[in-house]
Amino acid sequence: MNGAESLVATLVASGVDACFTNPGTSEMHFVAALDRVEGMRPVLCLFEGVATGAADGYGRMAGKPAATLLHLGPGLANGLANLHNAKRAATPIVNIVGDHATYHAQHDAPLASDIAAVAAPFSSWVHASTDAGKVAHDAARAVAAARKPPGGIATLILPADTAWSEADGPAEPIATAEPAPPRPDAVARAADALASGKAAVILLRGDALTEEGLAQAGRIAKTTGARVMCDTFTARLPRGAGRFAPTALPYFAEQIVETLAGTERLVLVGAKPPVAFFAYPGKPGWLTPEGCEIVVLAQPHESGPAALDALADAVGALGASPDLAPLARPDLPAPGPIDSALVGQIIGRLLPEGAIVSDEAATSRLGPALHTAGAPPHDWLALTGGSIGQGVPLATGAAVACPDRKVLALQGDGGGMYTLQALWTQAREKLDVTTVIFANRSYAILNVEMKRVGADPGPKALSVMDLHDPVLDWVKLAEGMGVEAVRVDMTEAFADHFARCMREKGPHLIEVVHTR
Amino acid sequence: MNGAESLVATLVASGVDACFTNPGTSEMHFVAALDRVEGMRPVLCLFEGVATGAADGYGRMAGKPAATLLHLGPGLANGLANLHNAKRAATPIVNIVGDHATYHAQHDAPLASDIAAVAAPFSSWVHASTDAGKVAHDAARAVAAARKPPGGIATLILPADTAWSEADGPAEPIATAEPAPPRPDAVARAADALASGKAAVILLRGDALTEEGLAQAGRIAKTTGARVMCDTFTARLPRGAGRFAPTALPYFAEQIVETLAGTERLVLVGAKPPVAFFAYPGKPGWLTPEGCEIVVLAQPHESGPAALDALADAVGALGASPDLAPLARPDLPAPGPIDSALVGQIIGRLLPEGAIVSDEAATSRLGPALHTAGAPPHDWLALTGGSIGQGVPLATGAAVACPDRKVLALQGDGGGMYTLQALWTQAREKLDVTTVIFANRSYAILNVEMKRVGADPGPKALSVMDLHDPVLDWVKLAEGMGVEAVRVDMTEAFADHFARCMREKGPHLIEVVHTR
Repeated sequence: MNGAESLVATLVASGVDACFTNPGTSEMHFVAALDRVEGMRPVLCLFEGVATGAADGYGRMAGKPAATLLHLGPGLANGLANLHNAKRAATPIVNIVGDHATYHAQHDAPLASDIAAVAAPFSSWVHASTDAGKVAHDAARAVAAARKPPGGIATLILPADTAWSEADGPAEPIATAEPAPPRPDAVARAADALASGKAAVILLRGDALTEEGLAQAGRIAKTTGARVMCDTFTARLPRGAGRFAPTALPYFAEQIVETLAGTERLVLVGAKPPVAFFAYPGKPGWLTPEGCEIVVLAQPHESGPAALDALADAVGALGASPDLAPLARPDLPAPGPIDSALVGQIIGRLLPEGAIVSDEAATSRLGPALHTAGAPPHDWLALTGGSIGQGVPLATGAAVACPDRKVLALQGDGGGMYTLQALWTQAREKLDVTTVIFANRSYAILNVEMKRVGADPGPKALSVMDLHDPVLDWVKLAEGMGVEAVRVDMTEAFADHFARCMREKGPHLIEVVHTR
Repeated sequence: MNGAESLVATLVASGVDACFTNPGTSEMHFVAALDRVEGMRPVLCLFEGVATGAADGYGRMAGKPAATLLHLGPGLANGLANLHNAKRAATPIVNIVGDHATYHAQHDAPLASDIAAVAAPFSSWVHASTDAGKVAHDAARAVAAARKPPGGIATLILPADTAWSEADGPAEPIATAEPAPPRPDAVARAADALASGKAAVILLRGDALTEEGLAQAGRIAKTTGARVMCDTFTARLPRGAGRFAPTALPYFAEQIVETLAGTERLVLVGAKPPVAFFAYPGKPGWLTPEGCEIVVLAQPHESGPAALDALADAVGALGASPDLAPLARPDLPAPGPIDSALVGQIIGRLLPEGAIVSDEAATSRLGPALHTAGAPPHDWLALTGGSIGQGVPLATGAAVACPDRKVLALQGDGGGMYTLQALWTQAREKLDVTTVIFANRSYAILNVEMKRVGADPGPKALSVMDLHDPVLDWVKLAEGMGVEAVRVDMTEAFADHFARCMREKGPHLIEVVHTR
């Protein structure tokens, strides 16, 4: 058994059994090991940003890490932007990055770079294996590091000779740390804050956003009058009929200020106090109201659900009935030209139970979010790190993790172009993903932001935010990668095609041409 | 005048007048400045790897840096792989990377990351501006750093408030350092080595590879009997009829060993001793023959042409006539199924004078290289850093730099998928680029490398090197981005379409389906 085989066997024994890859020469022994060791599913991606984004989607849905297999520093570099998003989502991921043989590093060959330095800004754990005998144990450590609560990016650098040299065999998996239990003093402080009669907000992030965590927060809200909120962009949010719905913070700073106005106690469960996504001249960045007391009920590495259980007990809320969303689907809209709100209305009407929604719809996201609030239960995955080009890869990985659930990618056209290669992987793996492209043919958000930062655009500036010249043909782009596609600009056509996509399995794309 | 305007004005005054960009909110004031300051051409790219690859192609052809404008750490990260290639090519590039406002950094907003750390592995100079009054001077320093011989990647981080706050005005350009003159002792040692009667090789890189540098090397070869060689992959090589042709080192280590066998003196002009691209079990990595003396005539920051002039003088070669390539075009091949050699033959027949060839043809590159050796004078740009996904962006940037020259991108299908968004920029800017996709529907090189590293692939391993399921349709992909395209699998069809592409201006793509 060589080092690569010991590595793959250890990953599989540690519960890592999917690998999103774009390999090169230095990873050939890992690739060959896929046939010599049972249990690892390779998923080929034509660009590394697809691999890392898919690993993020997989991790969010599977609750355990996938591996990526990437080629040297530049291959890792191509995957960094979606690792940034995954890091902000606290998704567990194990990156395996091939490197030159240890004895070849001295020669500074053309593909050489400082891989550990490339990995560091977006990893919580980085290690370079130094000999084949240690690779297996290093792999076990990498998995444990990725799974360490709340979840992180572990990058293991694998020099080619540690892959091809003889090893002893796989290593024992390392027991995964559990989220830390509630701290009684924190629970008592939070209970005091909620019992104070002051206007309170409970802000949830991470594992607090399970169906059970939400229900418990709903009971606390019912009992104490506190409001329950979540971030604008959540890694995974269970939504729909029968679930307690937290209020999502709005996107713009002044809207958050308005939403939080009058709040005197802010109770954080795995979350951080809200800040502005960007700074704007003369606008606030820190958004907690002045004089509001901040109470940390649970830090990110502590169990959100257990903390909420303890808090519910402390405030006498265990017997309360939370306000759960009723099943309430909108009607189909009248025939006519489509816009993003009408798309949302149709999706709200037709979204199947158990759907997974990857939301990178950007300026088109509010309609779909609003109209699916009363749809059957589903999960919503948002752009946690703000780096566009996540949506289609994320949907791809979610579909690998959950083959029996319908996956829906809501994707702006600007962001969709970053990582469109993900469509090919969907076709190759016959994944059950429907991609809706919101084709406003613009970096629409930048037209808004340009004004917000106080800049005055002329014709050159306006041109670099505009995607009309030439118009992208998403039907051809999708078909070019083996995904069936249509273009629509009317409500009835979208409803017909969307209904068909929800009925039939396999990848589809609908380009929605709209102007607002 | 705000900081952004002072920055753009300083870049223009310093000779940087093209900006390949994919901006975001934090770069809006730079974007607005494009209309308030004369002289900067923005070129919109739909992915940052296109922007950095285009800046590389521009820099190689223009001999001066372009700017990129990128959005925060993740936007820079998306551009790193092609910055790696540019770094290996010693191409001057000035990256402007927007960041959060200085006072907003404390809040760790979702898009925050350590941009300087992201830039460092692939930059020769990194600086974060701290106030609007210093931005202009920092820009002048960045340009000087990029132009410092032999050329480098300068990354200037621009916090949003330093862009929007009031500044004094543009800064004076900083005089560019010239390549250092020849060192007499180095010239004397090289002359001794060549006069010793020992078998000698002169290895050229960088600015030595101008038409004049090559001719001088050819005179030295004629006089001393030394062989003149260049790297396997050169940043820019003037080739064709009337030029002295160095022998390119082959790709595989054992081929290089064979080529250099018997060499007793290795004279380096801007080059490093050849090493294996990858390590293979039991094969050498350091490829200079044992006992061969290495003489450094010119280091990378020293002038290659001046050093060759001095050496030619020292060995009495100034009056010699170098062996220049004759004009020798191949005939068009007989009608029949096409392969990469036949593609090369047709290109050799039809390539126009002054063409610029961006070569990322990978396993298909030898035929085109062979058959164009006697074509009219042209420039050849290769994949210097080994990170695929360079070719189409590089061609894009070269076409922006040289609007009156035909640009030809020879592109493998695997590498082409990394940065296919470059085709959109070609359509938008109406660039005169013909892209030939070698569609062998495989990561063909990996099938070779798998055997060379001694691995034994099973069905899973073979599947991750294969691109047949589904087949990519490059005609649809190109048309989806506004580029006219055809698919061919016969010689006569390729010859017809290629001839038309050479006659007509504007972007075209030809997908060549072939099996070898």
